[in-house]
Amino acid sequence: MAVKIFLAEKDIPRQWYNLAADLPTPLQPPLGPDGNPVTPDMLAPVFPMNLIEQEVSQDRWIDIPEEILDILYRWRPSPLYRAKYLEKALGTPARIYYKNEGVSPPGSHKPNTAVAQAWYNKQFGIKRLTTETGAGQWGSALAFACALLDLECKVFMVRISFDQKPFRRLMMETWGAECVASPSEETNAGRNILKEMPDTPGSLGIAISEAIEAAVTDTSGQTRYSLGSVLNHVMLHQTIIGQEAKKQLASIGENKVDVVIGCAGGGSNFAGLAFPYVADKIAGADIKIVPTEPSSCPTMTRAPFSYDHGDTACMTPLLPMYSLGHTFVPPPIHAGGLRYHGMAPLVSQAIVEGLMEPMALHQLECYEAAILWARTEGFISAPETSHAIAATIREAKQAKEEGKEKVILMNWSGHGLMDLTGYQAFLEGKLVDYPLPEEELSKSIHVMDKLPKPSMAKSGKW
Amino acid sequence: MAVKIFLAEKDIPRQWYNLAADLPTPLQPPLGPDGNPVTPDMLAPVFPMNLIEQEVSQDRWIDIPEEILDILYRWRPSPLYRAKYLEKALGTPARIYYKNEGVSPPGSHKPNTAVAQAWYNKQFGIKRLTTETGAGQWGSALAFACALLDLECKVFMVRISFDQKPFRRLMMETWGAECVASPSEETNAGRNILKEMPDTPGSLGIAISEAIEAAVTDTSGQTRYSLGSVLNHVMLHQTIIGQEAKKQLASIGENKVDVVIGCAGGGSNFAGLAFPYVADKIAGADIKIVPTEPSSCPTMTRAPFSYDHGDTACMTPLLPMYSLGHTFVPPPIHAGGLRYHGMAPLVSQAIVEGLMEPMALHQLECYEAAILWARTEGFISAPETSHAIAATIREAKQAKEEGKEKVILMNWSGHGLMDLTGYQAFLEGKLVDYPLPEEELSKSIHVMDKLPKPSMAKSGKW
Repeated sequence: MAVKIFLAEKDIPRQWYNLAADLPTPLQPPLGPDGNPVTPDMLAPVFPMNLIEQEVSQDRWIDIPEEILDILYRWRPSPLYRAKYLEKALGTPARIYYKNEGVSPPGSHKPNTAVAQAWYNKQFGIKRLTTETGAGQWGSALAFACALLDLECKVFMVRISFDQKPFRRLMMETWGAECVASPSEETNAGRNILKEMPDTPGSLGIAISEAIEAAVTDTSGQTRYSLGSVLNHVMLHQTIIGQEAKKQLASIGENKVDVVIGCAGGGSNFAGLAFPYVADKIAGADIKIVPTEPSSCPTMTRAPFSYDHGDTACMTPLLPMYSLGHTFVPPPIHAGGLRYHGMAPLVSQAIVEGLMEPMALHQLECYEAAILWARTEGFISAPETSHAIAATIREAKQAKEEGKEKVILMNWSGHGLMDLTGYQAFLEGKLVDYPLPEEELSKSIHVMDKLPKPSMAKSGKW
Repeated sequence: MAVKIFLAEKDIPRQWYNLAADLPTPLQPPLGPDGNPVTPDMLAPVFPMNLIEQEVSQDRWIDIPEEILDILYRWRPSPLYRAKYLEKALGTPARIYYKNEGVSPPGSHKPNTAVAQAWYNKQFGIKRLTTETGAGQWGSALAFACALLDLECKVFMVRISFDQKPFRRLMMETWGAECVASPSEETNAGRNILKEMPDTPGSLGIAISEAIEAAVTDTSGQTRYSLGSVLNHVMLHQTIIGQEAKKQLASIGENKVDVVIGCAGGGSNFAGLAFPYVADKIAGADIKIVPTEPSSCPTMTRAPFSYDHGDTACMTPLLPMYSLGHTFVPPPIHAGGLRYHGMAPLVSQAIVEGLMEPMALHQLECYEAAILWARTEGFISAPETSHAIAATIREAKQAKEEGKEKVILMNWSGHGLMDLTGYQAFLEGKLVDYPLPEEELSKSIHVMDKLPKPSMAKSGKW
């Protein structure tokens, strides 16, 4: 029984899978501030038209350009692992598999879309990309992609992370990107915030506003903005993960998956693994598909499905999604990538359709799971990824109780070597769980609480 | 043309290769303080007898226990990469291949021997291992191995690294090891140093003394000491790297290697890749084998071949090796793993025999090479590894000048994600080269400057 299942480069998937083509109810369109659907032209100052076309595409399969594959070969196909050491420790009859996305140079799944976005921008004649980063995983991935494609890259990094995580910044600079603390003096948005709150630690919402402003105000027309999650084209680029997993499992005769698990902040790594299985589920397969989130930022399990902005400063269109409200401030859990108020519209819609069963977990359980993982499987996991591990352990224990040989497939979205302070807090007994922020929940602003009901809605959540 | 060449787990090498069996002149034995050869019994308080047997073995092949392979499968066989993106950037006709040892959970080649050493200690009934670590790569690897084998692990970490690299310490703690700053109050060696120099930043020499003392003074008899380089059994355990590389190259029809390159501090990652090729060279093959070192710590290129201690405090036996003297203090280059005064006896002897062509490089050239690597191949390299990259680039450029399709094989010994401060200094223009420390060289103490001349000595160095 092999621990690692490889896939040859020649067998890499050559198309991305677009779930939008198969959803029982079509996605609602993004809306402008006037409540009318946003047109592609309105997005043109922010994104290149070739990515906007992907964003609105209804095609089921979209070809991956050979030149993008040629970049991805540095780490793709990523190995599929059998978690046999964890299985043994748990004494479970379940067979647990995971995709190891930590093998990419920046150490996470993020470059799957960073490379694609940088490539399409370059094709469109763009010379320079701007983006924001919180914990730093996305900023590093875009810096990496821009280095390989010879694009300039500017990353607005949330001030508190900029100060606390100098190594993340150094990664970006090693790949040639410019990284500035946000709020900065370089944008109106940043200057206004600094005038009011000179000592602010910053926020992802502010950093997004600055990155968008820096892109749209460049009069050369050669700068665009790049987003690392939430949007349809980002989910699309990640679907190579789940397609690879299917081929790898088939190569060892494992043709039936019972449970698919991934952590979800904006939704992209989860979607990448899960969407090809969602397609199977829509076609009738019996698969439990589980996006996991922090109990203290319970977007999928507690928030309403509504129209809301993707950022705090309301610069993005209104997106149809589960949202805790764009002013929601999550407690300071260590999984920075899961501290987001919204959820990708495609994931949200699939939940509404009853195709997924979200699970919320507190961080103590997740770190306990990550420690067990490190001491059995060997790898140190990102705090975000630990939410998928904890859910996997729950499912494996349930399989043991039921005496069932379930097949569980998980996305190990990235390593935690740049994020060890959470482990320190846990090991020193200083890590705490945060109660559900009911007060924050009740305060949260939703721009539009009611949407037309999808025809197949089964979740009963709204 | 595939970028990554995989090897199936079933094809993993099942024996280690012992160069001692093939050296034209036998290794000189280690000597005690009285100048007489050390016997296995004298080493028994420090190492378990099964490892001492490996240390003195003259067997060419030594079986790798299945249980060790079962642990190694977490990352072995490691992928062999074709560095086609670097080749393109250099416009070289050379074909460059590298073993990616950064895929191990601790991120370097070190666990190849850490796992083996922990396993043999456990077989021998040992419950607890002590070791030292400088930059942290070795301490993390042993912590990792002990976690998987359920052994206690105590790491004495050089004070200045302990303070400057909290993430390295956190890695060890995540795997359950205890990590203390050295010098510590826990040993006589540490207490004595602290009494004289309360503010000392510590040194590898002091940390080794503390780790050995902590092992040999444990009256339970269940503690031993573990070393991450220099000794014969450590070189042995690393030879799985070169054997894998041979199989991987053969699988793509690449049957002739022209140049083999690795960085060498104590010598282990270099030996791991190179020794199986040294065997070919002894048998007549035409291969250039290049260990690389810092110009400011020029053990192989400037030091005499002599008998010297492995540590500053003279607790180890006298080893026959190139040595700058056990009191030599190298300049503060960022490649901490290459700041060592000696060189593995097996590597030293092979150099004396004329089987290798050492190369010394300054760190500015190495960081420049590492930046080019990050922006072409994509991976961020350890500062030590950058010395192998710089040498590879030199060889590739020479192949271009000569118009020759050379095959170059390099060991990419580990990633640099925990060691980014050197990149920062380089990018900010603050990194400097250090002149050869001639004064230090002339001061260096060698316990015995003259050794019996090996029969095939060709280097002309002594």
